[in-house]
Amino acid sequence: MKNSRSSIALLLFFMFLSISFVYPAKKKQYKPCKQLVLFFHDVVYNGHNAANATSSMVAARDGVNLTNLGDQFHFGSMVIFDDPITLDNNFHSTPIGRAQGMYFYDTKNTYTAWLGFSFVFNSTDHQGSINFIGADPLMNKTRDISVVGGTGDFFMHRGIATLMTDSFEGEVYFRLRVDIKFYECW
Amino acid sequence: MKNSRSSIALLLFFMFLSISFVYPAKKKQYKPCKQLVLFFHDVVYNGHNAANATSSMVAARDGVNLTNLGDQFHFGSMVIFDDPITLDNNFHSTPIGRAQGMYFYDTKNTYTAWLGFSFVFNSTDHQGSINFIGADPLMNKTRDISVVGGTGDFFMHRGIATLMTDSFEGEVYFRLRVDIKFYECW
Amino acid sequence: MKNSRSSIALLLFFMFLSISFVYPAKKKQYKPCKQLVLFFHDVVYNGHNAANATSSMVAARDGVNLTNLGDQFHFGSMVIFDDPITLDNNFHSTPIGRAQGMYFYDTKNTYTAWLGFSFVFNSTDHQGSINFIGADPLMNKTRDISVVGGTGDFFMHRGIATLMTDSFEGEVYFRLRVDIKFYECW
Repeated sequence: MKNSRSSIALLLFFMFLSISFVYPAKKKQYKPCKQLVLFFHDVVYNGHNAANATSSMVAARDGVNLTNLGDQFHFGSMVIFDDPITLDNNFHSTPIGRAQGMYFYDTKNTYTAWLGFSFVFNSTDHQGSINFIGADPLMNKTRDISVVGGTGDFFMHRGIATLMTDSFEGEVYFRLRVDIKFYECW
Repeated sequence: MKNSRSSIALLLFFMFLSISFVYPAKKKQYKPCKQLVLFFHDVVYNGHNAANATSSMVAARDGVNLTNLGDQFHFGSMVIFDDPITLDNNFHSTPIGRAQGMYFYDTKNTYTAWLGFSFVFNSTDHQGSINFIGADPLMNKTRDISVVGGTGDFFMHRGIATLMTDSFEGEVYFRLRVDIKFYECW
Repeated sequence: MKNSRSSIALLLFFMFLSISFVYPAKKKQYKPCKQLVLFFHDVVYNGHNAANATSSMVAARDGVNLTNLGDQFHFGSMVIFDDPITLDNNFHSTPIGRAQGMYFYDTKNTYTAWLGFSFVFNSTDHQGSINFIGADPLMNKTRDISVVGGTGDFFMHRGIATLMTDSFEGEVYFRLRVDIKFYECW
């Protein structure tokens, strides 16, 4: 009888252990296994700022030229960028990496964009890259896109990045705050 | 002896339980944890349909203009779209969301495209977004692309979307049926 | 006492078994569950090689034409491609699939690109597709991008692809060696 009881106790203990192994941050609790808050800064080429520009329009609707984002809420205008990533909201802070990729405006009656880009790190802080895609309804205070993969320090990571427009100046400069929450960390 | 037998029975029972925990829809059975069947409708701008067009060419090969998809099976022509998503195959049904992103034709000797886009929902049915990329060999009856992430109701989801051309009219209108099967649901 | 001991032995054995079930190539050991080494070949259209070209510029910065990748390290130039995939480094080997998608150059002061593409297979070797995105700092000997999904034989796969420039001839031809390591295989 005693034997049986201790066996059952062990079993229950192990059952508990096993369950906590099987659901380790993945199922139903949704606590990030890693978090980063970063800023990046985009200066769009407008025909007069070649020295400072970090991005450039490369495609647009018929009749829209490439030095002006165009009417109809910039619908169809595509921008390729290589933007500095900083730890705070200061454009002049030392970059800790580069945000490289593209966005394009994709609605005729409001400002929305679609993003495909990477954060590329090569510093003592971080090595490797984080890859993002997703829809960005710019007029919302916060917008969620997908972290679909990563390399180096971010090997195989997945998660959600929340974008916030931290500042913008006309159609030339904007700064995004990016809250990255990884839910798969490896 | 009795104790031992019942311990072994318990162990076997638990073994079974444990295995069903560890392989919970993920390994080897491939049953979707969630499914959606939706339609979206693309009306390409051709120079004469500005009011109705939901998409526009924004890039093309040298010598191809932006109001005509061009020869060589449209090779190189890129389209940015903001298409209504409906529950049935009727263009005039109330949209439940928007399909936003891009596609481009990428073969010289047949019709194939590459897609990068999101389904964006903001209704009582669904909140959030689903992000897709993949190759679309248009001439096949069904084509599979990847669901690489999601946000909101589709937080961290992954899966497969099967595309079917449900209708097309010349080079101006097409309707895609999309069967989304999620295999990672969180 | 004997019963109890054998129960504990069984438990320990099972514990070991269970742990190896729960961490099956996913956690902390990082052994690929599948590997592929492939090559693909890109011949960029330059105005004079229409017959051989497998890719074409379709977008660029203001003032850059579409038959020349342009100055400033090709910043902003976007190329759409449909490149043969081969098992060895010989351009004339029988292709086993097609690499279809886009890349664009995205830095003004060195060669870097951003890639979004698929490997599309329809042969006895492989059926299905593999979808990739990521940053490609071309001047590095090896560069890692993300495998974000797959279909067919590569259903739901994820992993890392390591790119190596195996050869290049001016701005017209390059060959990439791609080491694909899948870490999620389904």
